Amino acid sequence: MALRLVFVVGMAGSGKSCLTGAFSEWLRQQEQDVVTVNLDPGALDLPYEPDVDVRSYVTVVDVMERYGLGPNGAMIAAADMIATYVKELEVELEALEPDLAIVDTPGQMEVFAFRPSGLFIVENLTRWPKALVYLFDACFSREPGNFVANIFLASAVYHRFFVPQAHVLTKCDLVEREDVKKMVGWSSRPKELLEALEDSLTGDRRLIARDLVRAVCRAGASFPLIPVSSTTYEGFLNLNMVLERLVAAGDRYTF
Amino acid sequence: MALRLVFVVGMAGSGKSCLTGAFSEWLRQQEQDVVTVNLDPGALDLPYEPDVDVRSYVTVVDVMERYGLGPNGAMIAAADMIATYVKELEVELEALEPDLAIVDTPGQMEVFAFRPSGLFIVENLTRWPKALVYLFDACFSREPGNFVANIFLASAVYHRFFVPQAHVLTKCDLVEREDVKKMVGWSSRPKELLEALEDSLTGDRRLIARDLVRAVCRAGASFPLIPVSSTTYEGFLNLNMVLERLVAAGDRYTF
Repeated sequence: MALRLVFVVGMAGSGKSCLTGAFSEWLRQQEQDVVTVNLDPGALDLPYEPDVDVRSYVTVVDVMERYGLGPNGAMIAAADMIATYVKELEVELEALEPDLAIVDTPGQMEVFAFRPSGLFIVENLTRWPKALVYLFDACFSREPGNFVANIFLASAVYHRFFVPQAHVLTKCDLVEREDVKKMVGWSSRPKELLEALEDSLTGDRRLIARDLVRAVCRAGASFPLIPVSSTTYEGFLNLNMVLERLVAAGDRYTF
Repeated sequence: MALRLVFVVGMAGSGKSCLTGAFSEWLRQQEQDVVTVNLDPGALDLPYEPDVDVRSYVTVVDVMERYGLGPNGAMIAAADMIATYVKELEVELEALEPDLAIVDTPGQMEVFAFRPSGLFIVENLTRWPKALVYLFDACFSREPGNFVANIFLASAVYHRFFVPQAHVLTKCDLVEREDVKKMVGWSSRPKELLEALEDSLTGDRRLIARDLVRAVCRAGASFPLIPVSSTTYEGFLNLNMVLERLVAAGDRYTF
């Protein structure tokens, strides 16, 4: 067995569960031996059947009832409690002997990415190679200011986990082709993002945004976005090539 | 009436509600005419009695029951629904005729800061001067990598709202004095943060962190942190001086 793990991370509503479901389905069609892992104790309906599911151990609704917590407190408590089941999850996962696991993370990114338990899970859920996919929601990111906010969030996530990170533009079927092109352009040619910021902002706001984008570019932080759609499977071939490079030295997972 | 609004924003568990309660109490002791506004539809127990409360209009638990949603979906739906009550909230708020309103925001920062409704509320909840307080949790931020992640998040928030922003280090009573000094040093003297990163990281991770911090510093993004404690009221005098500058041209709110 040579397992690889791909964690799917992004803001609430950015399409993590849909991507997990659709991309794993697509990989199965390519005869890749892939399983899905759900780490979201607050998920109610998932658009896929997880092979390993943290909700076997803890759910937000249970935590609300058992400890008399509100949804906020229960979500944090449940996300933290996942960490105590990392050994059980690992045993379940390795028993399936897959070559690749797509790992869906909690709906609210911050309870996973910016609390100790999330880092603990990424570091301790098996010792196999790992990568992370950070999702840019195409509907949200087409506004240049939001695109920049997403760059900062992606940087924060990268700083937190420090595993190889791919950047994906989701929901491309929901925006115009022109908008997809525009955002992919922004991600690979910072000058175009700067121009868009110039056009959309005025005064101080423009100056500050420009300085910050320039700074991030100078630091060599690069976010080439892979446009995908979990509805049409568009872009999954490209996404897969990038992930194969990140976790399997460019090879297929299953031969 | 000359109302000013201060929005309290930070990651889940960073101390938003405690700061809202303690700081408003302290301001009352200084004979300032202050009210509190709760914008978190998911709050169960608040450490203060909000004068204006979004839960009069919508709660996460109601949304879960009424629409059969899980906690994730209900939290997003409820946060979005707040926006439809902005007029009602404004009428309630202005009827109180305060000179200052401290506005507590939803527990999960991303459902407020990075969804359309949050921006809509900050822009449309009255036409009075506004500022934002971004919270760095001292317990989380004392690790240099987490401190950097928080800088990126604070930048993302700034880019999203573009209102004057103060940066506060919360829970200073829970960490050693040495750690407080260290973090305040990192925030005002980037060189010290770079040194801490050098010590705590190795290899590639060190190089990349260094480049990014340098870039943010070069861009003039400055995050002088105001250390506070909502338990001991330490630092509230300083926080208030900064907020008076941001929203009241350096004057007191109430004479």
